[in-house]
Amino acid sequence: MEEKQNIFGCHYIVEYIGCDTEKLKWSAPVEEALLESARLSQATIKQHAVHQYEPNGVSGFIFIAESHVSVHTWPESQYVAFDVLTCGEKMDSQVIIDYMRDFFKASKTNVQKILRGF
Amino acid sequence: MEEKQNIFGCHYIVEYIGCDTEKLKWSAPVEEALLESARLSQATIKQHAVHQYEPNGVSGFIFIAESHVSVHTWPESQYVAFDVLTCGEKMDSQVIIDYMRDFFKASKTNVQKILRGF
Repeated sequence: MEEKQNIFGCHYIVEYIGCDTEKLKWSAPVEEALLESARLSQATIKQHAVHQYEPNGVSGFIFIAESHVSVHTWPESQYVAFDVLTCGEKMDSQVIIDYMRDFFKASKTNVQKILRGF
Repeated sequence: MEEKQNIFGCHYIVEYIGCDTEKLKWSAPVEEALLESARLSQATIKQHAVHQYEPNGVSGFIFIAESHVSVHTWPESQYVAFDVLTCGEKMDSQVIIDYMRDFFKASKTNVQKILRGF
């Protein structure tokens, strides 16, 4: 007997490696880039927040109608932990992933795709 | 030659299945439970936000010093997509995962653990 699958979304777990340290330090430009990437992807932005770490480093989050985008930067390691969780077909997550890769000037990007549900 | 590993955090991707629909509808109790679970885990809460969907359903997010906790509920499917991203050893992510499982009254919980970094 076939088991019924209930898939609600697709979760992209992204590692940006070898980034430009300067792009990882301050919340305002990261916030602006996040919002622009979400707009370009056709996501529906609901709410967002960024947090500035001391002496530098950023966490950011956008609620989108399609779920969320989150970012955490490690400037001293030129590394960014990023994820996009989407449900529905309207938005294009790849647009966000590519836009932020270019913004952070990542020399390498690893993406894992995880289906969410049961 | 051995490759150097740079691990910055641990990402728990959690599916709560067969939850109590009533627990998944409204943002205020979900927000309260999220914050309480984070406190009990010894996480350092920095900032948080919840979003109420119409007619019901909740997205929530907490920035913690150790990274983040996020939640998205599907009341009609008794399903919750949840994740905890932590760096450092101080906090206990399992406390959050267990607390929210009990809050949502999930009949099944699937957890995937992903190391973040490169």
